[in-house]
Amino acid sequence: MPRQVRLRRHPVGALAADDFHVVDVPMPEPRDGEVLVRNTWTSVDPAIRIRLAAVAPAGYFPAFGLDAPMDGIMAVGEVVESLAVGFESGDTVWHTYGWRDYAAVPAGAGALGALGSLRRLDTAVAPAHAYLGPLGPMGLTAYAGLFDVAELCAGDVVWVSAAAGAVGSLAAQFAKLRGHTVIGSAGSDDKVAFVLGELGLDAAFNYKRGAIEDQLRAAAPDGIDVYFDNVGGDHLRAALSVLRRWGRVAICGAVSQYERDRPAPGPDNLFQAVANDLTLRGFRGSSYTDRMDDMQRDVAAWLRAGVLRHRETVVEGLEQAPEALVRMLAGGTIGKTLVHIA
Amino acid sequence: MPRQVRLRRHPVGALAADDFHVVDVPMPEPRDGEVLVRNTWTSVDPAIRIRLAAVAPAGYFPAFGLDAPMDGIMAVGEVVESLAVGFESGDTVWHTYGWRDYAAVPAGAGALGALGSLRRLDTAVAPAHAYLGPLGPMGLTAYAGLFDVAELCAGDVVWVSAAAGAVGSLAAQFAKLRGHTVIGSAGSDDKVAFVLGELGLDAAFNYKRGAIEDQLRAAAPDGIDVYFDNVGGDHLRAALSVLRRWGRVAICGAVSQYERDRPAPGPDNLFQAVANDLTLRGFRGSSYTDRMDDMQRDVAAWLRAGVLRHRETVVEGLEQAPEALVRMLAGGTIGKTLVHIA
Repeated sequence: MPRQVRLRRHPVGALAADDFHVVDVPMPEPRDGEVLVRNTWTSVDPAIRIRLAAVAPAGYFPAFGLDAPMDGIMAVGEVVESLAVGFESGDTVWHTYGWRDYAAVPAGAGALGALGSLRRLDTAVAPAHAYLGPLGPMGLTAYAGLFDVAELCAGDVVWVSAAAGAVGSLAAQFAKLRGHTVIGSAGSDDKVAFVLGELGLDAAFNYKRGAIEDQLRAAAPDGIDVYFDNVGGDHLRAALSVLRRWGRVAICGAVSQYERDRPAPGPDNLFQAVANDLTLRGFRGSSYTDRMDDMQRDVAAWLRAGVLRHRETVVEGLEQAPEALVRMLAGGTIGKTLVHIA
Repeated sequence: MPRQVRLRRHPVGALAADDFHVVDVPMPEPRDGEVLVRNTWTSVDPAIRIRLAAVAPAGYFPAFGLDAPMDGIMAVGEVVESLAVGFESGDTVWHTYGWRDYAAVPAGAGALGALGSLRRLDTAVAPAHAYLGPLGPMGLTAYAGLFDVAELCAGDVVWVSAAAGAVGSLAAQFAKLRGHTVIGSAGSDDKVAFVLGELGLDAAFNYKRGAIEDQLRAAAPDGIDVYFDNVGGDHLRAALSVLRRWGRVAICGAVSQYERDRPAPGPDNLFQAVANDLTLRGFRGSSYTDRMDDMQRDVAAWLRAGVLRHRETVVEGLEQAPEALVRMLAGGTIGKTLVHIA
């Protein structure tokens, strides 16, 4: 029987797995212009947490309703039945009706700002689930964040926070592959070891082992030019202090803030932006879908050449998705967190 | 006898005029490559307050020393004696040795990031003191802030805070002259009347008369695209809430913060930058000296055409400079605040 994960209540503070429940639902019936997809993998992302509040930030993707299908989470799967031109049974596709076994997905409709609109995937390039990681939204977010948002240019010294995470590990490697000096930070010694050993960054630190600004200065004695921010809060404050003139921040996320009961104050040293001519630019990967082809071309080449690592934390079974989200938000996962549905 | 205004102690909290004193000094003697200038006008700017602390923000212009000449404040004056090629007695010049009667000024040396390096002024275009306002650093700051930093483009709706101030009143008018819808805010009903009546903005509000965000939304029901920030704090917070997708903030100053005893937290809604793809860019006018010629060409044309207003608050006598700064920081001045020395 098809299942869906649904939100039982809007969590306040730290998320618990039983804020969700799994419900049995009838098999969806595709209508004209839709395809029926059997989902094989779905995605667990920090940004989901933002949409578990009763109201999401203005302008952001809408909050999930209670006890309703959680639309707007990426998944890959196989087309079981097609009533849409351009799709056939057996096609591997991505779409945004994740956290369920089966979905009836409209073709040609924008989803997640067109980022996740129904799309056929070439599994000769990489296995389907890689399209939830480096070849998909994570890759685009890292790519656009570095090259379009932060306008990375030759000689820049780059700091990436949450560098062992899905987006951070890609952004850090993209910058390395383009020849930059890259510093990573993460929240455990294991992650720091991964970032240094497997990703080959120039320096890395565990932000729980000392003052962030001090550790960052030790890693980048001459300062940094770009900060790829996945964390916000104290991390952003440290970046503002250490950024050199004309430095840039790509604000990708603020995972340090997502589980707070109330909005947290911003950094108290924002004046450094004036003093040093700094740019802070927030962004969503979905705003840069025009760069998807460039990203996929570059990332596919890096994957073929064997120079891009992508660690995954895989949980088995749709019913494990909430627990995986809880673990990820608590810092207990490395790389891209995926749910293998079947 | 020549005089200098000097800082007696680093003020904590609200500035008082007796934090300064006026001292008699010997007549400066120009050396080779220098000119002796008799200052006629000098400038009173919010940014001076930042440099009265014991330590200025990292990367910013240095703090003023105690009981020392306050180098790095704009002035205009007349050359009394020249030992520098290219300058003659009687020339009208600007430089950065303000808050004193006489100064020996080196030619060809960068000052205030080259912004205020010794320069001859064309008083056929406008009287000398206009070069401390629309034709000088204030004009450049407004011009670069709008056109380079905020990348103002056709159709943008613009909010300027401190719109009755030296920079704000210029930025607001520049945007109007380029055809934009412009909303101004200020801290008194008199200033709001000035901004609406004399500057001709489309809407204006007194931020002390209600919640800033509510008043801003009432003035710009469809949101804003650009915020020219002179104030920081609650003003920046309101802007983040009301900015539309792809909106931009030019952070010029944060006068709401300068007299605080300790650093104030930043806005608690910085995540709006992610949700709406916003850019916040801090800047200093002195970083855009390459735009000085463009600015002076445009501003001179607007002045000749009689379409640019520039209100001045003039105090008479060098010894009044500290009191003028106190008044300005307390919100008691309109337009550019100038000291007429003699």
